[in-house]
Amino acid sequence: MKNKAITSRDVDFAKWYTDVVKAARLADYSNVKGCIVFEPRGYALWEMIQSKMDRMFKETGHQNVYMPLLIPENLMQKEGELINGFAPEVAWVTHGGEKELEERLCIRPTSETLFSDYYSHVVNSYRDLPLKYNQWCNVMRWEKETRPFLRSREFLWQEGHTVHETREEAEEETKKMLGIYKTFFEDYLAIPVITGKKTEKEKFAGAEYTLTVEAMMYNGITLQSATSHYFGQKFAKAYDISFKDRNNELSYCYQTSWGSTTRMIGALIMVHSDDNGLVLPPKIAPVQVAIVPIQMTDKVMEKVDEIRKELESVGITVTVDDSDKSAGYKFAEAEVTGIPIRLEIGERDLDQGKLVLTRRDTREKTEVLLSSDIITVVQNEMHTMQDEMFNRAKERRDAFTFTCHNLEEVKCQMEKQPGFIHAMWCGDEACELKMKEIKGTKSRCILEDGEKIDHHCVVCGKEAKYHVVWGIQY
Amino acid sequence: MKNKAITSRDVDFAKWYTDVVKAARLADYSNVKGCIVFEPRGYALWEMIQSKMDRMFKETGHQNVYMPLLIPENLMQKEGELINGFAPEVAWVTHGGEKELEERLCIRPTSETLFSDYYSHVVNSYRDLPLKYNQWCNVMRWEKETRPFLRSREFLWQEGHTVHETREEAEEETKKMLGIYKTFFEDYLAIPVITGKKTEKEKFAGAEYTLTVEAMMYNGITLQSATSHYFGQKFAKAYDISFKDRNNELSYCYQTSWGSTTRMIGALIMVHSDDNGLVLPPKIAPVQVAIVPIQMTDKVMEKVDEIRKELESVGITVTVDDSDKSAGYKFAEAEVTGIPIRLEIGERDLDQGKLVLTRRDTREKTEVLLSSDIITVVQNEMHTMQDEMFNRAKERRDAFTFTCHNLEEVKCQMEKQPGFIHAMWCGDEACELKMKEIKGTKSRCILEDGEKIDHHCVVCGKEAKYHVVWGIQY
Repeated sequence: MKNKAITSRDVDFAKWYTDVVKAARLADYSNVKGCIVFEPRGYALWEMIQSKMDRMFKETGHQNVYMPLLIPENLMQKEGELINGFAPEVAWVTHGGEKELEERLCIRPTSETLFSDYYSHVVNSYRDLPLKYNQWCNVMRWEKETRPFLRSREFLWQEGHTVHETREEAEEETKKMLGIYKTFFEDYLAIPVITGKKTEKEKFAGAEYTLTVEAMMYNGITLQSATSHYFGQKFAKAYDISFKDRNNELSYCYQTSWGSTTRMIGALIMVHSDDNGLVLPPKIAPVQVAIVPIQMTDKVMEKVDEIRKELESVGITVTVDDSDKSAGYKFAEAEVTGIPIRLEIGERDLDQGKLVLTRRDTREKTEVLLSSDIITVVQNEMHTMQDEMFNRAKERRDAFTFTCHNLEEVKCQMEKQPGFIHAMWCGDEACELKMKEIKGTKSRCILEDGEKIDHHCVVCGKEAKYHVVWGIQY
Repeated sequence: MKNKAITSRDVDFAKWYTDVVKAARLADYSNVKGCIVFEPRGYALWEMIQSKMDRMFKETGHQNVYMPLLIPENLMQKEGELINGFAPEVAWVTHGGEKELEERLCIRPTSETLFSDYYSHVVNSYRDLPLKYNQWCNVMRWEKETRPFLRSREFLWQEGHTVHETREEAEEETKKMLGIYKTFFEDYLAIPVITGKKTEKEKFAGAEYTLTVEAMMYNGITLQSATSHYFGQKFAKAYDISFKDRNNELSYCYQTSWGSTTRMIGALIMVHSDDNGLVLPPKIAPVQVAIVPIQMTDKVMEKVDEIRKELESVGITVTVDDSDKSAGYKFAEAEVTGIPIRLEIGERDLDQGKLVLTRRDTREKTEVLLSSDIITVVQNEMHTMQDEMFNRAKERRDAFTFTCHNLEEVKCQMEKQPGFIHAMWCGDEACELKMKEIKGTKSRCILEDGEKIDHHCVVCGKEAKYHVVWGIQY
């Protein structure tokens, strides 16, 4: 039994992806080119991600703020690299009401400029530091090719921006936030990730360096999933974020920023989902259990209600499908929308003192005695499912992880099966460009403690400096 | 002892307001004209408002979604009244990257157009109805005069948009959401409100009618605080939101929308705060208790920590000011930021087996025995404070509520002390315009079950149809 609205993942991955988005009703295309409508199920996923991540941010001493949507052109231009990086892809507001503006304003593609401007007003002394702020908001980048959740002109994200007294503290923050992203991806999204440093070519415009979280999708294509940037004093100097230091001398702050976006929803789909629709790790699923009464008799509904209440009492989120649709339709609905656990109860089950539990990921059915502790049964199943989903994703990633020693090997591999390619690199941008000729292969990151695979750059054969992970990216 | 950074409320109310915003560090002016920076304390208040309201929305069957920020001009124009209402105050995007757009896009001033367009795609049958969606987002209106929280070019809000099968159901929804706003204002914000219907002149562009929640500020000026609109089939016809009804015939949906904004933060300030800064009702305060150790000795800090843990164990939010500032400074800080309850503990208190509790609103100090049940003491104080804040606001509102029978009386009253004026109205727009000549007095709302004050329109003296509440508005 396969969901007919969904193209098989092995037949056409791109089509499969958009079919899942549509069939699970996560998002709809809008009348606005390159922008999507987040439908209730898609937005509920984002709310789950937000609530878990926000707690992690707050527990590490971050506070939420909100900066303006629009950035005046002159403010945007103060730090040269940033504007150069973003100029081709910002949207410009030129008219307010019926009047042309004196200065055009861009819709934020990212908010380093506004945070820096704000910090320059409020930071006066080392006593004011650090300031560790974050905002959840919409941003806009005028992309040409778009795809729901993965790349759209408008997207939702969080962007953290911090200012510190010392280089050490700022670098520690950059690293700490990378760690939080890694933990979040692995513990909640059940997606194994690799972390490392971006090359000069791939780093964020204006950053001294960029740390990144990289994940591999089911098809071996990779996804830059979250980034954490260390700015040094670059923005502080451009925007004059100076303060009286402990020696009563004027110093510039050290700064970081870090962000993650609604593309995480795309990652969840592309790592875990299947030909029957969405598959969600229990820890991030907005609804964890679907109870389907086979008949809607009083006797069945009474039991259904009892179980629902029991599960809800320990914080498990439950939906009861008491619509007048057929049981088969309800099963398919719970399946396509990725509800981790499905409980089916009918008259016959009741007579036999049992119910049927189906796990969404394996689609395995288990009979559960009504006399058993249903809370523990469901919690254990969810726990196992969360772990197994991570392990399966990790096994697949490891199976698609390769080591190459020369360009020919990279070429062969990428044509056969793309994935993470581990290979040495001399540090020369020309070699990165050469690599790109192979189906767009790019450096994903430099491994910080990467072992030496060999001594030669995979491209030019000269002396290698870095152990780099390469991949084709979304 | 008065906060020197704050102008006295009775000397200059407008200056007092912005002084409180600054002193409590709720918001900062930005480099973007008419837009503010929500600083951590201001944004935390918004997060509190969001979490409480969002729960009320979800409990009444609403789901969150997210629509695009930008609206194509042609989509905006489909319903004529809406675009006419908003055209003078929308911001237009004309360029994406370096290219001029074929069609300009406006930044949403409100999202009826996008929701209607979406609903027209997904509603096919009466079985699809109702759809009750809400979104939390930023919107933009190109205002000329701005004031933090009360009126700014960009603001944050929630906008609910629902489609229904029948007129009755949609009208019920319009009314129900007004009720939720009223409950929220009174129960959480401790602000008494009056509700009623807007006049034709004052209703939302495109609505059949608008219901409104109106509040009075400390100075007698009124604030439109939330609105709920009934659209009938207007948008459904303009955007073709049609469906097969129960008789298998094509029908148009009945629609509503309802919204409330960050101006609620402005209302909180202008109703409750005083010359020492912010005063927050305990139910909406992001931090409910500030514990100030008078000395930072081990003995004191141990007790402080014990009390903090105890209070936190029942969900009370606590901050401990263990900075190296003076106790006096810490008191002022807790006061200006509006923390409802302050607990002071010093060596001498410990020896005497007591602590000092100060309520922010009355600034009354009570000695509390350390042997007493501190949780109950604090909960009771907060409960009383919440009630008394509401009652004080209601008493003041009632004291500034007047009944007038002719224009001369209105004029006298508005010159002496503005407030809510109850007066009869004939229903003629010319009379509303005449009223406006008195210091900008406008109709706030028509009372649905308003008693007849007399038989004559307060302006023209002709036969009166409606009992209207009038006021000068922010």
